[in-house]
Amino acid sequence: MSNFGFTDLRVVNPYDVAFREARSAVKSQYILERARVCSNVTEALEGATLVVGTTALGHRDLHVPLYRLETGAQLLREHLQTGNAALLFGSEKFGLSNEDMSHCHWLTRIPTREAHGSMNLGQAVAICLYELKREAEEAAKGEYPKPETAPAEDLERLTGVLMELLTISNYAQERTLETTELKLRRMIRRLSLSQHDAEVLLGMMRQVLWKTKQACSTEG
Amino acid sequence: MSNFGFTDLRVVNPYDVAFREARSAVKSQYILERARVCSNVTEALEGATLVVGTTALGHRDLHVPLYRLETGAQLLREHLQTGNAALLFGSEKFGLSNEDMSHCHWLTRIPTREAHGSMNLGQAVAICLYELKREAEEAAKGEYPKPETAPAEDLERLTGVLMELLTISNYAQERTLETTELKLRRMIRRLSLSQHDAEVLLGMMRQVLWKTKQACSTEG
Repeated sequence: MSNFGFTDLRVVNPYDVAFREARSAVKSQYILERARVCSNVTEALEGATLVVGTTALGHRDLHVPLYRLETGAQLLREHLQTGNAALLFGSEKFGLSNEDMSHCHWLTRIPTREAHGSMNLGQAVAICLYELKREAEEAAKGEYPKPETAPAEDLERLTGVLMELLTISNYAQERTLETTELKLRRMIRRLSLSQHDAEVLLGMMRQVLWKTKQACSTEG
Repeated sequence: MSNFGFTDLRVVNPYDVAFREARSAVKSQYILERARVCSNVTEALEGATLVVGTTALGHRDLHVPLYRLETGAQLLREHLQTGNAALLFGSEKFGLSNEDMSHCHWLTRIPTREAHGSMNLGQAVAICLYELKREAEEAAKGEYPKPETAPAEDLERLTGVLMELLTISNYAQERTLETTELKLRRMIRRLSLSQHDAEVLLGMMRQVLWKTKQACSTEG
């Protein structure tokens, strides 16, 4: 809840020991301290103008409209523009009872694999709150400004140094010199090198070339 | 993982007690029994043609492209049409280290409230897998068959050969060895190398390394 900015927690007949332990969670203390402990669902839902139940199961005859979470979250967001809403979760073991569900305007289901059945409660809550907060439009923009790609002349310089290196080390033979250069040039263009990376790589290869030449001349 | 239909779990140096306990989880046993226990990240990433790291923080200077999960999941789904991918999670306490991140092609961030900081690991995993599976049928269809990208172990081999080359040619100094390796590893992941190109480049650099070593030994 704290991760996604929700603060109003209400718990119905919590198991005392677990609840007291949970209250010691360091970063979410402010939520748990203010959590309202209720003796029944009606009390917990006080003030909610929309009640949405959550279920892992899609095929039971629930007598209540059921939406996949992607759709459900959209409906919830629309409602939240003018009203408030309660998301109702059942116990991890049994989920919501028929009586609990009868309090709900509709239900929402996280699209999990049917065969697995129920879901960990903490994970289910996290996914629902994430889905409520995710903003498709905002997200469409990458946060990371793409670095400038290297200009052609940098790529060509890199091609030149690498070709020299491949020649001196006998990777490129007289006979295949031309095709090797073509392949190398094409490959370097495929790498989508940023200007910065191209410069770094050029520096590396120049140093390697210098060392190899020096060693070879001593050798010769 | 079982809720969303994922089965290939690899854990790096798990805490024995916790891992053995987890193995007794009734419904997910089939995943945990087959989970591969690895001694380092390189081993865990074997076979992955895309490595995506996860982070809760948006503002650190990470030197690696960062996308919000909504965008990241879209990119992942596109990649998964032709290749496979690894989602890399750090420890709950510290997240991914800089070294871990240098293995990643890019990072993704769950859009949580900055003030809260880190997130529960199980919840983070659940949200990422949910986002990958939501409206899967809506996922963009690739326009043209992209060549297969190089698996993590090929990229790591290339990193190794290049590091040796940079060391032998004194580009990497004793003092800067570690940061050079991090920078190099990150750069190679940014290149979006196809499997074929990675193999060609590896062959080239091996030949250069061989020649340089030979020349240097004669020199010495």
